[in-house]
Amino acid sequence: MWGEVILPTSFYVNFGAMEPIVLNILGCGSALPTSQHLPSCQVLSAGNKLYMIDCGEGTQLQYRRSELSFTKLRAIFISHIHGDHCFGLPGLLSTFALLGRKAALGVYVPDYACRMMEGVVKSLCGEMPFEVTFIPFNPKVPAIIYDDATLTVATIPLKHRLPCAGFLFKEHEGLLHLNRWACDKHGVPMAWYGRLKSGSDYVADDGTVIPNALLTTPRDPVRSYAYCSDTVYRPQLVELVAGIDLLYHEATFAEADAARARETFHSTARQAAQIAKDAGVGRLLLGHYSARYKDLQPLLDEAREVFDETYLSQEGMKLSL
Amino acid sequence: MWGEVILPTSFYVNFGAMEPIVLNILGCGSALPTSQHLPSCQVLSAGNKLYMIDCGEGTQLQYRRSELSFTKLRAIFISHIHGDHCFGLPGLLSTFALLGRKAALGVYVPDYACRMMEGVVKSLCGEMPFEVTFIPFNPKVPAIIYDDATLTVATIPLKHRLPCAGFLFKEHEGLLHLNRWACDKHGVPMAWYGRLKSGSDYVADDGTVIPNALLTTPRDPVRSYAYCSDTVYRPQLVELVAGIDLLYHEATFAEADAARARETFHSTARQAAQIAKDAGVGRLLLGHYSARYKDLQPLLDEAREVFDETYLSQEGMKLSL
Repeated sequence: MWGEVILPTSFYVNFGAMEPIVLNILGCGSALPTSQHLPSCQVLSAGNKLYMIDCGEGTQLQYRRSELSFTKLRAIFISHIHGDHCFGLPGLLSTFALLGRKAALGVYVPDYACRMMEGVVKSLCGEMPFEVTFIPFNPKVPAIIYDDATLTVATIPLKHRLPCAGFLFKEHEGLLHLNRWACDKHGVPMAWYGRLKSGSDYVADDGTVIPNALLTTPRDPVRSYAYCSDTVYRPQLVELVAGIDLLYHEATFAEADAARARETFHSTARQAAQIAKDAGVGRLLLGHYSARYKDLQPLLDEAREVFDETYLSQEGMKLSL
Repeated sequence: MWGEVILPTSFYVNFGAMEPIVLNILGCGSALPTSQHLPSCQVLSAGNKLYMIDCGEGTQLQYRRSELSFTKLRAIFISHIHGDHCFGLPGLLSTFALLGRKAALGVYVPDYACRMMEGVVKSLCGEMPFEVTFIPFNPKVPAIIYDDATLTVATIPLKHRLPCAGFLFKEHEGLLHLNRWACDKHGVPMAWYGRLKSGSDYVADDGTVIPNALLTTPRDPVRSYAYCSDTVYRPQLVELVAGIDLLYHEATFAEADAARARETFHSTARQAAQIAKDAGVGRLLLGHYSARYKDLQPLLDEAREVFDETYLSQEGMKLSL
């Protein structure tokens, strides 16, 4: 399973000299175990740091197989506390302890379950050789809950049987690029380069002003990724994920099981595609498949009727934004 | 990995008409995850019932892959509460709940951790649709902790960083076999067959006594299996597992790392073989391999120098006692 990684080459387009942001799919199944899929877990790699989204049972095994660095993980974001989204947490943290991790780690958990989860981890893992901080967030309102030098993470309220939030990862706006040829032409000294990159005009010693637009080229586009699982079809999502590069939206069911999707507060692949289309996202990634489907092609076909740029997630997949 | 199952054919010898007792290896690695092995879990199948020994992370996935019945599981025995022996419990029980299990399940946990584990499962799994009973046992004394129509389970005190017990599974003694030819010759009526099988002599209406030994053939041999993990080399084990059919003994380290084995309260493969030899067991199965060994052949070679009937356990293996 791990060997057969489908890597849509279109995802490998790299915008200029930008460092790639890579999404690693460690698990994209749902609650019942199958021999095809593992429960939810993803790792986003950006700016030489790693961010984990959900942590289903088996995450540490998949993490090891992925050959991602254990030490570069900065934070873990848990969407809700159904087992297939968080039961891998004690094992992962124990392994970090065994490996002698020293760096602090933040674990973001919905407010109603944060102390419980902290208590469970303390009971099972005992004293840890590194600082683990459990940080509660309100899953019912959209808000920025994390911010570092590379990106911000905002919550996306979803509608599930338990309060549940998706996460929007958004790169910070980069600097303007210097037009070296123009700078030389206008005699701009190197000491000004930093200010130009931040948007200042150049003011020469004699008072001459050279507008910034003549000396720089535009910033790189800001890249963004949203994870939306688990949720019933929820049109309110559209404005929260409008225009993003990549959307992962749960697609637990095929259209024939739409009634079951509603009952269990899940979505169909077609509904995921409707959100993607209405929000005008770049690409859509489906996941959180029900154990009942051996063949996922019908889910992909149903979604592509609505939104062509749809792909099936799969364990071991790596997508460069 | 799962596909490459090594099945020593010698294990498939089936004693006459006896129903096979089968040991299923779901995981035989140790604490650190590798791409080769999963943490400890085994399922023993006997008398149409299943018994689980340890329940490391990923057990429910391995259980599903093994195609063993979820509903036939009667009891789970946890040797100690290091994560690689018990972190799969919440996920397994949640899945049973999702699948609508109704049958009661007993979970046997060392006394010092039983209430903690019960609390963790309650916190993570919530209300269950079936009865789960956490039963504490003292891991420091050998005692029968489980008994049903098929077998008994006794604890085997081990010596590890935490109090830890192995488990000895022993079939109940079966009935004598009728010698139909002899019964007919001596005119024994069918109504006596049950008493003869239990060992009675036949007393005819005229008072003639026909000794049982003339009318029956011996009982089937009682089959037995012992699981011993985790433990430092412990010669006291020998008398507790003397003469059993199959011994699983941890072999975390190779002989070159014997000092590390002592420090961490684990055994080498050679030490496992010494126990097997001194106890005169039928066969020895090694497992709980340290993540440092990519190739396990040296462990097997070192053990076979001491005890020839040694085998390496592997995920997916099924051994018929």
